[in-house]
Amino acid sequence: MVKAWLSKTKHRSACWQLPRGHWGQGAKVHCWLALLSWLLLPLPGGSPTPRQPRAPPRVRNTHTHPPTRARTHTQPTQREEQQQHRGEEALWRRRQQHSQRSHGRSSRHGTGLRRTMAAARHSTLDLTLAATGLQSIFQKQGMTETIHNWEDHGYLATYVNKNGSFANLRIYPHGLVLVDIQTYNDLNGGEDAGQLLNKVEERMKELFHRNIKRVKRLPAIVRGDTIDRYWPTADGRLVEYDIDEVVYDEESPYQNIKILHSKQFGNILILSGDVNLAESDLAYTQAIMGSGKEDYADKEVLILGGGDGGILYEIVKLKPKMVTMVEIDQMGIDGCRKFMRKTCGDVLDNLKGECYQVLIEDCIPVLKRYAKEERMFDYVINDLTAVPISTSPEEDSTWEFLRMILDLSMKVLKPDGKYFTQGNCVNLTEALTLYEEQLGRLSCPVEFSKEVVCVPSYMELWVFYTIWKKRSEV
Amino acid sequence: MVKAWLSKTKHRSACWQLPRGHWGQGAKVHCWLALLSWLLLPLPGGSPTPRQPRAPPRVRNTHTHPPTRARTHTQPTQREEQQQHRGEEALWRRRQQHSQRSHGRSSRHGTGLRRTMAAARHSTLDLTLAATGLQSIFQKQGMTETIHNWEDHGYLATYVNKNGSFANLRIYPHGLVLVDIQTYNDLNGGEDAGQLLNKVEERMKELFHRNIKRVKRLPAIVRGDTIDRYWPTADGRLVEYDIDEVVYDEESPYQNIKILHSKQFGNILILSGDVNLAESDLAYTQAIMGSGKEDYADKEVLILGGGDGGILYEIVKLKPKMVTMVEIDQMGIDGCRKFMRKTCGDVLDNLKGECYQVLIEDCIPVLKRYAKEERMFDYVINDLTAVPISTSPEEDSTWEFLRMILDLSMKVLKPDGKYFTQGNCVNLTEALTLYEEQLGRLSCPVEFSKEVVCVPSYMELWVFYTIWKKRSEV
Repeated sequence: MVKAWLSKTKHRSACWQLPRGHWGQGAKVHCWLALLSWLLLPLPGGSPTPRQPRAPPRVRNTHTHPPTRARTHTQPTQREEQQQHRGEEALWRRRQQHSQRSHGRSSRHGTGLRRTMAAARHSTLDLTLAATGLQSIFQKQGMTETIHNWEDHGYLATYVNKNGSFANLRIYPHGLVLVDIQTYNDLNGGEDAGQLLNKVEERMKELFHRNIKRVKRLPAIVRGDTIDRYWPTADGRLVEYDIDEVVYDEESPYQNIKILHSKQFGNILILSGDVNLAESDLAYTQAIMGSGKEDYADKEVLILGGGDGGILYEIVKLKPKMVTMVEIDQMGIDGCRKFMRKTCGDVLDNLKGECYQVLIEDCIPVLKRYAKEERMFDYVINDLTAVPISTSPEEDSTWEFLRMILDLSMKVLKPDGKYFTQGNCVNLTEALTLYEEQLGRLSCPVEFSKEVVCVPSYMELWVFYTIWKKRSEV
Repeated sequence: MVKAWLSKTKHRSACWQLPRGHWGQGAKVHCWLALLSWLLLPLPGGSPTPRQPRAPPRVRNTHTHPPTRARTHTQPTQREEQQQHRGEEALWRRRQQHSQRSHGRSSRHGTGLRRTMAAARHSTLDLTLAATGLQSIFQKQGMTETIHNWEDHGYLATYVNKNGSFANLRIYPHGLVLVDIQTYNDLNGGEDAGQLLNKVEERMKELFHRNIKRVKRLPAIVRGDTIDRYWPTADGRLVEYDIDEVVYDEESPYQNIKILHSKQFGNILILSGDVNLAESDLAYTQAIMGSGKEDYADKEVLILGGGDGGILYEIVKLKPKMVTMVEIDQMGIDGCRKFMRKTCGDVLDNLKGECYQVLIEDCIPVLKRYAKEERMFDYVINDLTAVPISTSPEEDSTWEFLRMILDLSMKVLKPDGKYFTQGNCVNLTEALTLYEEQLGRLSCPVEFSKEVVCVPSYMELWVFYTIWKKRSEV
């Protein structure tokens, strides 16, 4: 049972499912975070004006309130709102004129200082325009405004709605404008946030016309839902899965075992937060079996881990002499037998078949026993999890553990046998190099090859290794 | 040139690259949004206490300030901080005792009302504990606090740092705690946010011990960077790519053309925000050529679109009689010729080869011309973009356009010829059904088959169609 050793950059988070109805009476309560951002250029007529660290642009507020660090506004009356909107239009026109004038001036005189001042004034106006231009949209929703102005770092307004939602409007002096809306609703929190963002987007377009160089709206991030759709890649990227159902969720003595249903990938096995295998991932099983280049007929095969049953199921079809699978976690097998049947077929229904047996054991003592008995295999397939879940006392570190497994495996591998294992995400080059260094330190000299494979549910390319005993030169 | 028709749920955003050095003097200035969330259970001894809509839990503040809607705190002295921390510990102990007492009481007496009251009081204590327990961490950073309390919707604190970063602490009455930190830094904004989150995570663990049912930390979202790593899937999911370089970025008369470098996928062609094809995506080209089941030798082939050159390059290898490719966008071809060479090889270096020609034209008039001339092809491969970029006046809607292309293609297809095209993301079943309905409305009766393929850079499974003329019954 699968994937990812030493994914050092991968954040492992403990995740448990809430008992049904524990909070929110089983209602679908969760939080949406809608994210919208713009990168702005100076107003028309403005020259490219890089930020001056010594004379940072200041963001001032057009309201007449005293310049406290944080202020709170309440909703304006409709008339105030109209006045404000008219004010913004006038502001925009003045701004354009001003911008053109200040540009003209700085080109004419051409001193560095004047340029800097024009640039600073310029940005100030941009940002105030954005801030005042967007205020009314939030105020219309009955949102209460709290403003924070930095000396050097721009502007932050927080808008709080009576219904529990809130928005941040953050304007950075160099022209980055961010609007983040967090809503929380049993029914249509996402829709509300979406509509509000539409209005904000429209207003920004009105205010800045051709000065928007980039606008980006990200799909909303949903948190606190019973279904967690975010399972970052081994190289630490944020990816959202199309998960619509929690099929199985148990704490075994060794790990958290989740099976989640993805619309496109089928059921996905997730062990302690790591996406291990989906029903769509025959490519994984084929790769760790040697990509169709091996003949398993009448062969002795040892599988370490592999509790999802995928490898066992595929090899049994190929009429091997005997397959022995050593998996430590009975609960993993139980979950997969029920909910990963596209992967394991009926092979896990019994722990013993005509040409296979499944041992529910720690593989370390089993390997030692076989080594002592001089029992040999044609193929050893290591499908253990990333982080060791063995209980052996020898495992000083992950690398020690990996090397011990490799050394023991070589002891039970026939001279012309092959050892297959999954490696890591192709981007984690450092971890891959470290692994390959371990291969040079085994008590038996080995050679290896590797292959990069696209495993559909991983959303990243994965490296698989083939390792064999070095033939002594003839 | 490729992917996605009628992806109705896909957000299309206009994206332009900033001219170099326009803002921030070319420095790597961008914003990190670090996201951390917890789902909490009641304190030890508390029975499962579903939220009561009529008696919502209230979040009160333990400070002695008057209950204004929003308040601002400044940084405490070290001594105040220590006192506060000791206070929190005492609070925690009292809370536990209280929790056990109130639980005991409600079980003994067992009236509904008492239960409700206990539940409400219970939640109140939970949330206040979280709020006060986390305050000191933010205050230690020199952050200024602004608090908002709702009657029914919990608690929001905004912490503003002198360096321009800020954090939101949002606590929902049903036990969802969210901490979002936005930093902005040329150098280590992400690291700072990460360290702060570590502290918050540790404190939450101290405060709530076994009451944390789920904790989730998402990879930080980076916005405003010159490199945009977020290119949502056709079915609207947020996915982050491992993009490390903007290789090409131009506005053609028809579309925005980006070629971005991904560490694992190689260069990726992105047209108007849609991931079209990466150098890793031979699977796409093979699928749209019939998945290796066709014999192209000595055949007449027509490619509609296909400006990345992938299909042309692969077919030319198979010794066809003649391949004609009709692509409207010269700039797309120019970009791919230079930067997608793993995909197109040298086939785009000349618009004419021994067995192929590339016409830089709108395909509609070309198809009409060929139909009139009764020129026939063995294979027609439609690799046009999702949203039509043709200039023909006939295209009333996307579906009209699609049907027109199909009808014209059938006119130039030999009776035993085949028409290949990409469909859509496998999850967009409605769009796929609509497309298949169009196939039933062509002027020439057709049959079709489809195949689901994993295209590595898409991060979603994709449907490809094979369409052929229905044979009249013998």
